Amino acid sequence: MKVAQKIEQARKEKRTWWSFEYFPPRTAQGLQNLVDRIERMRLLGPDFINITWHSGGRTSELTTEMIRFCQETISLETCMHLTCTNMRPEKVDIALTAAKEHGCRNVLALRGDPPAGKEVWEAIEGGFVHGIDLVEHIQKHYGDYFDIAVPGFPEHILLPPEQFQTELKHLKTKIDLGCSLIFTQMFFDVNLFIRWVKAVREAGITVPIVPGVMPIQNWNGFQKATRIANTVIPQHFLDVLEPVKNNDEQVRKLGIKLVADMCRTILNSNLDIHGIHIYTMNLERGTRMLLEELNLVPRIESVKPLPWRQCLTPGRRNETIRPIFWANRTKSYIARTENWDEYPNGRFGDARSPAYGEIDGYGVSLKQTKEEALKIWGSPTEFGTFKAVFRDFCLGKVPSLPWSEQGPSSEMKVIAEKLAQINDLGFLTINSQPAVNGVSSDDKVFGWGPSNGFVYQKAYLEFFVSSELLAVLLPHIEQDVNITYYVINKAGDLRTNTHSEGPNAVTWGVFPGKEIVQPTIVEAISFMAWKDEAYELGQQWANFYDQGSAAGEFVKSFFDTSFLVNVVHNDLRQPDAIFEPFVKAAADYAAQKRVPNGYVNGDAVISNGHAH
Amino acid sequence: MKVAQKIEQARKEKRTWWSFEYFPPRTAQGLQNLVDRIERMRLLGPDFINITWHSGGRTSELTTEMIRFCQETISLETCMHLTCTNMRPEKVDIALTAAKEHGCRNVLALRGDPPAGKEVWEAIEGGFVHGIDLVEHIQKHYGDYFDIAVPGFPEHILLPPEQFQTELKHLKTKIDLGCSLIFTQMFFDVNLFIRWVKAVREAGITVPIVPGVMPIQNWNGFQKATRIANTVIPQHFLDVLEPVKNNDEQVRKLGIKLVADMCRTILNSNLDIHGIHIYTMNLERGTRMLLEELNLVPRIESVKPLPWRQCLTPGRRNETIRPIFWANRTKSYIARTENWDEYPNGRFGDARSPAYGEIDGYGVSLKQTKEEALKIWGSPTEFGTFKAVFRDFCLGKVPSLPWSEQGPSSEMKVIAEKLAQINDLGFLTINSQPAVNGVSSDDKVFGWGPSNGFVYQKAYLEFFVSSELLAVLLPHIEQDVNITYYVINKAGDLRTNTHSEGPNAVTWGVFPGKEIVQPTIVEAISFMAWKDEAYELGQQWANFYDQGSAAGEFVKSFFDTSFLVNVVHNDLRQPDAIFEPFVKAAADYAAQKRVPNGYVNGDAVISNGHAH
Repeated sequence: MKVAQKIEQARKEKRTWWSFEYFPPRTAQGLQNLVDRIERMRLLGPDFINITWHSGGRTSELTTEMIRFCQETISLETCMHLTCTNMRPEKVDIALTAAKEHGCRNVLALRGDPPAGKEVWEAIEGGFVHGIDLVEHIQKHYGDYFDIAVPGFPEHILLPPEQFQTELKHLKTKIDLGCSLIFTQMFFDVNLFIRWVKAVREAGITVPIVPGVMPIQNWNGFQKATRIANTVIPQHFLDVLEPVKNNDEQVRKLGIKLVADMCRTILNSNLDIHGIHIYTMNLERGTRMLLEELNLVPRIESVKPLPWRQCLTPGRRNETIRPIFWANRTKSYIARTENWDEYPNGRFGDARSPAYGEIDGYGVSLKQTKEEALKIWGSPTEFGTFKAVFRDFCLGKVPSLPWSEQGPSSEMKVIAEKLAQINDLGFLTINSQPAVNGVSSDDKVFGWGPSNGFVYQKAYLEFFVSSELLAVLLPHIEQDVNITYYVINKAGDLRTNTHSEGPNAVTWGVFPGKEIVQPTIVEAISFMAWKDEAYELGQQWANFYDQGSAAGEFVKSFFDTSFLVNVVHNDLRQPDAIFEPFVKAAADYAAQKRVPNGYVNGDAVISNGHAH
Repeated sequence: MKVAQKIEQARKEKRTWWSFEYFPPRTAQGLQNLVDRIERMRLLGPDFINITWHSGGRTSELTTEMIRFCQETISLETCMHLTCTNMRPEKVDIALTAAKEHGCRNVLALRGDPPAGKEVWEAIEGGFVHGIDLVEHIQKHYGDYFDIAVPGFPEHILLPPEQFQTELKHLKTKIDLGCSLIFTQMFFDVNLFIRWVKAVREAGITVPIVPGVMPIQNWNGFQKATRIANTVIPQHFLDVLEPVKNNDEQVRKLGIKLVADMCRTILNSNLDIHGIHIYTMNLERGTRMLLEELNLVPRIESVKPLPWRQCLTPGRRNETIRPIFWANRTKSYIARTENWDEYPNGRFGDARSPAYGEIDGYGVSLKQTKEEALKIWGSPTEFGTFKAVFRDFCLGKVPSLPWSEQGPSSEMKVIAEKLAQINDLGFLTINSQPAVNGVSSDDKVFGWGPSNGFVYQKAYLEFFVSSELLAVLLPHIEQDVNITYYVINKAGDLRTNTHSEGPNAVTWGVFPGKEIVQPTIVEAISFMAWKDEAYELGQQWANFYDQGSAAGEFVKSFFDTSFLVNVVHNDLRQPDAIFEPFVKAAADYAAQKRVPNGYVNGDAVISNGHAH
């Protein structure tokens, strides 16, 4: 969606909106960290984000890569900055074509700062001279696909009147060409901003003006940022901040209050400005504090069309079905299916044929360092402490598992106690969902889709289990006609009691005037692809331990020999029925293992006096 | 499915099965009557039916047409008879190609009777000589697509031994070529049949033998049939029947008992024969009586994959979605969509583009004669008696409506009283379904699909209504966020409160290990196509009355000016909520019409003393 439309919509809804700006980091590792941060900061509720373009275009590929990732995996609407500096039209077109391919429909057309080492901007041979040239180029070659925003410089109000009028004329020309939005450069003097806005409006420019503000995070950063941009700093800022300049915490706290005051003045003015654009400097804390200071609470996502986030990229925008297996590993799913020609839409059958990408090609790997891993998962050398890791994850006491970077979801919490019990019995769960029998589509935990609808889920469990325990479990599972299962081992031998080739819908919704929407399924082919990833993640856990160490051997050997199982209970009206076979199987297993002296599997138990 | 497979399956299930044989009638009108009868007789539970081929092939097109209709519309597995008599290979191929196209996989290869006027069979030039030639031709050109059955002649046991052995050899040759089934010619002497079967088995023939039996329906028919086929009639048949030969009722009653005795002897023998093939002579009553006499009760259809019957023709076999509008007019729906390249499968969207055939091209017309129509629908000249027709249909007191040839379905009966009330209020319903919130897929009234599943329905009403009543109804409908509707008039102006282009699933099922199956939908494009048919049927009703007559004018004028409306209540947990707006609207309407002297619309009402 075009940013200008979003802004207009917020205006109609009379709500304050905000957007974040990020710049591409210098390294691949930095990129990984940044996209993780962008994903977290998504929860702060930005309506869209801007990705800058490094002067000289050195990091242009990174900009493109960030655009792709945000549109596709984070599902955040992006605006791509594009500068003339050192840019030949060919290079501009590479960036624009990629942006279009990834569904980005917004460009901020800039002239850009002088390249490093030069004080004054100059056009390269064959390159663009003015921002206007870039605007015309985009419109000529991409029609109205892109909405073009242009920069605004509030401090131009301080220029000699004639020179200011020339700048205003340039701005007006670009707007008259069809540019639809003005992002201002960072400023701290609100009066200056207000005077500039009035001048702009008097010049007949009516498009939305978005004030760009920077949360002050520390004294040096504040000094550097304002020095580079030559920003006017009001005396009362210095009066407050300079005395505490050696105390970062105080600078941030007081600085953010000052910026917040400025924002309030703007938002409460009669300037018809209802949003702010935050220069995050790729930092999370200051942005969060500014929003808190302004009392800007992220809306609960009012539009959540599916239980999982849809990609904003054109090829995937109509994707409406995914296998449940990657529910906690969206990035990996997107990466491994990126070469599909079409995505499942309506029924999974439509696109079942495409092969999943090999896991190696997409770097399926754990994000934890060795130190982190050992800290959160310990060094289990026997099954008791090992299964406790899985159990404690269900209870929120262990922050992540190799298969789940985040802690338990709110819907998992509904069955956390049951899951913990199942894990204690030796079934090591890595994915699950509770049964849901038609709750409102507006339900805070389970809801999705349009209002006045009902959503449904079949209970689902996925777990690793030893062959001995599996052997006693399967007869119990097969006794319940409502359970369907798939069992697989590391070698890929599959066993199932389903007779149909097709997928099993495990999440669906019924809505007024619509077909049944069934966004999550369980299905054999994707389970087989997921199996490789699930075992690989287990292997990587084992790899954290020194070779030959007891923990390394134990964890490796467990995954080498255990089975991966998924179980669906198809009667959603019996939410607890899925757990019953596990309890029964564990009892059988204990009875089998019980030896005359009353010990089970090394644990002392109260003997019932009979040897079995 | 191949008939031999069905027979084998019945054998495994240890159940007695039966099949019916029909011959093509001589006229188009006869054909219409016959297919209606075949459809009714489907309820008697035949596993399949045979369609004969008239000697000389005069009616070969009718055989093909019957095969098509039975496979497609009645969804009955067929076996096509094919004779050599007077048949050139080209003609055989036309018939076989058509049969294949219609999904028929069974052929009974016959030499056939001598053409009319000749006593002895002779091959035409270039034609087939023996049944074996036909078998070889079919196998050569159609591989194993067709299962080939061959005829058996129990009375050959009476031939001189050498001649009988020659016949047996011929039969064995055909079986050795791969023919999989033997249908015997009609017989009445069970001992003769048993002796013949034993001889056939001794000759090393092991394929199933299906005894062909004819219910004796009257003396003349019995005499004629046995004379043509030269059938041996046991003396005890004559002893019983001849004394009553002038009393058709008695002949049928006693004759059917005799035939039933014969069938019992066979089915209870150690011959491993578990089914009978009934030569119906295109008559219903004798067949029904024979089955009753044998205590053969039609199974409740154990496999009902969808709420409506799927076609057996290859092109439509995968069709899984239909609009609700034609729920009571399957034939018309199939006819009007027969030129679609593909049929909706999984989601209706896939095949929404094809145009519906024009109704004129498919002869959408009422089946009633003028006399019948006037008898069942009377000659209404004002709204009171007119709406009573619709109301009484809901209550089962009027056997059919122009839009519904059969009386109320079992699911309609669930809401019959409510429907009657709605009709009384002036909303003339022509289609409906009650809300169903997850009943067992084995439910006798609402169930369909595999066992252990749950089926769901949204409440649906479709009705004609005057513009005045519609005007008061719509505000009430629009007040319920759970209701979606489409209103259309004869000219095709459409009004709706649905914002989505897509269809509304109104019937769906949730099954173990499966995607959600959603076989019935409400959708704008098909509603617009149905509208023409719905109004045309109303017009045809009007046409029954003499031009210029009061009834003709009244009925015509009602349909010319009324609106066709469909309403879906999207919250299946409030089964009665769909009726509420109608009751409220009728109250409003009555209040509007009330004039000071206490009369509403010409009907006396109790005035409440206030003028509105």
